[in-house]
Amino acid sequence: MSELSRAVMERTFRQWKTQCLNKLDQSKKGSVDQHIEHVVSLLNSCEQYFTTSSCSGRVVLLDGPPESSDVQKQNCVWLLVSHQKCTADELVSGLAKAGRDAVLKFEPFVLHVQCRRLEDAQLVHSAAINSGFRNSGLTVGKSGKIITAVRSTHGLEVPLSHDGKLLVAPEYLHFLTQIANQKMEENLRRIHRFYQNLQSALTTEKLQTLQLPDPPSSQGCSQSPPDRLETEKDEENKASVYKRRRRRERHQADCCHGDESSGVQELDDCLDLLT
Amino acid sequence: MSELSRAVMERTFRQWKTQCLNKLDQSKKGSVDQHIEHVVSLLNSCEQYFTTSSCSGRVVLLDGPPESSDVQKQNCVWLLVSHQKCTADELVSGLAKAGRDAVLKFEPFVLHVQCRRLEDAQLVHSAAINSGFRNSGLTVGKSGKIITAVRSTHGLEVPLSHDGKLLVAPEYLHFLTQIANQKMEENLRRIHRFYQNLQSALTTEKLQTLQLPDPPSSQGCSQSPPDRLETEKDEENKASVYKRRRRRERHQADCCHGDESSGVQELDDCLDLLT
Repeated sequence: MSELSRAVMERTFRQWKTQCLNKLDQSKKGSVDQHIEHVVSLLNSCEQYFTTSSCSGRVVLLDGPPESSDVQKQNCVWLLVSHQKCTADELVSGLAKAGRDAVLKFEPFVLHVQCRRLEDAQLVHSAAINSGFRNSGLTVGKSGKIITAVRSTHGLEVPLSHDGKLLVAPEYLHFLTQIANQKMEENLRRIHRFYQNLQSALTTEKLQTLQLPDPPSSQGCSQSPPDRLETEKDEENKASVYKRRRRRERHQADCCHGDESSGVQELDDCLDLLT
Repeated sequence: MSELSRAVMERTFRQWKTQCLNKLDQSKKGSVDQHIEHVVSLLNSCEQYFTTSSCSGRVVLLDGPPESSDVQKQNCVWLLVSHQKCTADELVSGLAKAGRDAVLKFEPFVLHVQCRRLEDAQLVHSAAINSGFRNSGLTVGKSGKIITAVRSTHGLEVPLSHDGKLLVAPEYLHFLTQIANQKMEENLRRIHRFYQNLQSALTTEKLQTLQLPDPPSSQGCSQSPPDRLETEKDEENKASVYKRRRRRERHQADCCHGDESSGVQELDDCLDLLT
């Protein structure tokens, strides 16, 4: 890419960022979830990133038409939405209002980050994969928009009623609440890990950029990073634990057609960016 | 990118492809699932693609430690794996063998495609998003490996036993089997749509390349595409239906912090590549 076209793209990116951050939050809730405010702030403080949507993770109880018909969320009633741990009583109260097919879901953390350049997107993607968000991926639009989506494989989706009739016993609802709350805890641990991995990677990148003064625009995080040596050491340990885990998982070859050395290789390639 | 480095990258890609396709299939099953053989063949017949792993979609019953402890699949026993619709009897038989915490999952179609160039990856990604595989995304490794992962949001994950004790009634297992089978059907419909979208996009790209003779290497599918006009018309209709659906979904703003115009905008950018 020529210097000129790079400069034009970077100016366009800055315009997109200004427009996006000046807009009203158009989500139902209207604000960033408390559990991920620090993650969103960290990214938005970097000139190479801005977040376009996020959810810290939630338990939802949806009431809607059966699976075989239109399963779009707009035809559903939200009987319960909780971004915190929930109680079996809340679940029971929600279910009492179900008139169709109610489904309990745990929806983990999701984050969309628009990135200035492909290498900036790779950094976020790599931090996400290292933190356990294995369904993360990039989108590259024809207009030059690059977005990293941070997504987890970690879910729960349990049908609980059919035509308004409850299908399970109260004891099962208690058990299910525990499971959903455990998933919520694990989700928060992963978010914490992602924040640390991101901070660490941004610090490393900043230091590398200081050693190589050109291009200067790769610097640009306004938040001061933590003690680098401590963080990096922690990070190395964590990343290698994750690498080992993924290697073990790969040996299971739980995909149906797979090439062990290249099937999940993409993740390692991506990991190698940072570790 | 210079002509030389592009040529080097393309040679490297050809070597990767040859190595990958000459290797034994290292998955548990050892072969490509019947439902997606045509998709895998179509991609591997194109010089710009090869598949590295895939699963057509399956119902699995896993028995393992509770959620709070190590949830890695390697510590689990697979009580049931079915790539076809399954019966309640199969589920009941599987559960009879559960000694720990059994969980029923529907895992939808997943496919990893290594791509020669970023624009080749965008084509597959766009076809995937247009077909309803909304969790699809790219991975770009530092070695230049570009992989598109085709993934669905369409799942099911239901805890069924704790410490070997069944938590639900037989009627619920019948209902759950129906739900899982409906998800399997919808999954197959999306695979079919993905195949059609992919064929159509590859045909359009090929025709465009014929009009613009440079670079010649963008041609290269050995499978003959269907009647283009008919397919394209169908495709346009389908893609616009999907676009409308996604716009409707966006109005729900079911993410917690979201900017309606850019939150899921990435998908439209991506869609715009083809439609």
